[in-house]
Amino acid sequence: MEFAFDRGVAVRRIDAARWQGEVEPRWNIGSAPNGGYLLCIALSALHESLPHPDPVAVSAHFPSRVSPGPVEVAVEPLRVGRGHSTAVARLEQAGEPRVQVTATFGDLGSLDGPTIVQAERPDIPPPEACIRAEGPVAPDFIKQFDMRLTPESAGFAVGLRSGRGVMEGWVRFADGREPDSRSLSLFADSFPPTMFHLMERIQWVPTIELTVHGRGRPAPGWLQCRFLTRYVIGGYLEEDGEIWDQTGRLVAMSRQLARVRD
Amino acid sequence: MEFAFDRGVAVRRIDAARWQGEVEPRWNIGSAPNGGYLLCIALSALHESLPHPDPVAVSAHFPSRVSPGPVEVAVEPLRVGRGHSTAVARLEQAGEPRVQVTATFGDLGSLDGPTIVQAERPDIPPPEACIRAEGPVAPDFIKQFDMRLTPESAGFAVGLRSGRGVMEGWVRFADGREPDSRSLSLFADSFPPTMFHLMERIQWVPTIELTVHGRGRPAPGWLQCRFLTRYVIGGYLEEDGEIWDQTGRLVAMSRQLARVRD
Repeated sequence: MEFAFDRGVAVRRIDAARWQGEVEPRWNIGSAPNGGYLLCIALSALHESLPHPDPVAVSAHFPSRVSPGPVEVAVEPLRVGRGHSTAVARLEQAGEPRVQVTATFGDLGSLDGPTIVQAERPDIPPPEACIRAEGPVAPDFIKQFDMRLTPESAGFAVGLRSGRGVMEGWVRFADGREPDSRSLSLFADSFPPTMFHLMERIQWVPTIELTVHGRGRPAPGWLQCRFLTRYVIGGYLEEDGEIWDQTGRLVAMSRQLARVRD
Repeated sequence: MEFAFDRGVAVRRIDAARWQGEVEPRWNIGSAPNGGYLLCIALSALHESLPHPDPVAVSAHFPSRVSPGPVEVAVEPLRVGRGHSTAVARLEQAGEPRVQVTATFGDLGSLDGPTIVQAERPDIPPPEACIRAEGPVAPDFIKQFDMRLTPESAGFAVGLRSGRGVMEGWVRFADGREPDSRSLSLFADSFPPTMFHLMERIQWVPTIELTVHGRGRPAPGWLQCRFLTRYVIGGYLEEDGEIWDQTGRLVAMSRQLARVRD
């Protein structure tokens, strides 16, 4: 456990169905912990509780805000089957539910069905030709990563809105930890909001619901990410994420429903 | 309660946190009830339990198969807030969890944020130029609808696979019931699987996880639907749904993770 991410999502068992973790402020955006990070705390407890190694479908609702500090995770297995197991993990603070996670785990290391790919990975500049997300105003959260945004995506930071609901680039952990199947739920919520290219001013875009589908175990190295928003309707928007590993394979697909105010 | 859908998803309260419903075989595909239909039974119990009228984010995991017959729905509210309320509804048979639903409700009748649309509704032939899904081999489920598939999408029924992971057309209830915000979770799982255009032979494509985002209350009339699969990887695939109402507004977006065998 030498990497920041592993320390940040570590849980220890309290009793048969409860785990204790610590929400570290380094994963904050402003004063609120990142949603994907909270998901990964839940996945740590689920991973310890279920026989299958990889999350294949993770859904989270965020009814209440989580604060940095101790968090309890209540785990309830629903079914352990041959190919998949499903369980609920609830993050609680002050005895109240804060994040409700339901996850189905499987084994992405022994995929045995057909493969048919009918889409192309976006052709973006390589990491060295992209712009590193950093600087004095970057949230603590961003400093946990080496994140390289395409020039168009990076423009929001200097007031250049593209007018397109797209945020894309490359990401890996700043401390050299390689991505794995559980960390994909963090990366799926790691980029600046697509809305930063559609709104007049930068503002909070709280997540209502986030689903991540693990589609493969990532190879070591960079992850290429693309987040896309096509419909902002009455203040609700979807943000669709796709993550490819350094070998070019799709390894995760995500969607969140989020909210913006005028 | 004169419409088949309303009868099919009706629940009655057993006690403070439990509801009883009946899984009607008319919503079967083969011997298994449709997943979107099961979601709507859960939404009935949630609707009775929460102050907000419309599901805005509904996530369901399907750990065990449901049989036609009595079903119990255990409801647990997580938070009732000003703009949204979130709760869990679990479908149980024989005392076991079968479908785990988490839903956040809101009010799609009073949307007050920005609207920015960066996609176009697909231009498909009108319902009268599409092909009605019917006939002796159609599942009972399909008979609950007037479903019109585009000629390309309908081809699977006569062995003409398009080779594209797309299924699109129009749908409404066969008995004239108009769509509402809760029934969108049924429509989001109503079309034949996109895989029917990608597989050598027609086979079951079980759902692992299904998320539906309600983006607007549908106007009366036809719903235009498009389901798209881009990545089949090792037997797992996403099926992304978009539903527009007769006025051309996007009213729901869905995604499911499903499984196929070779």
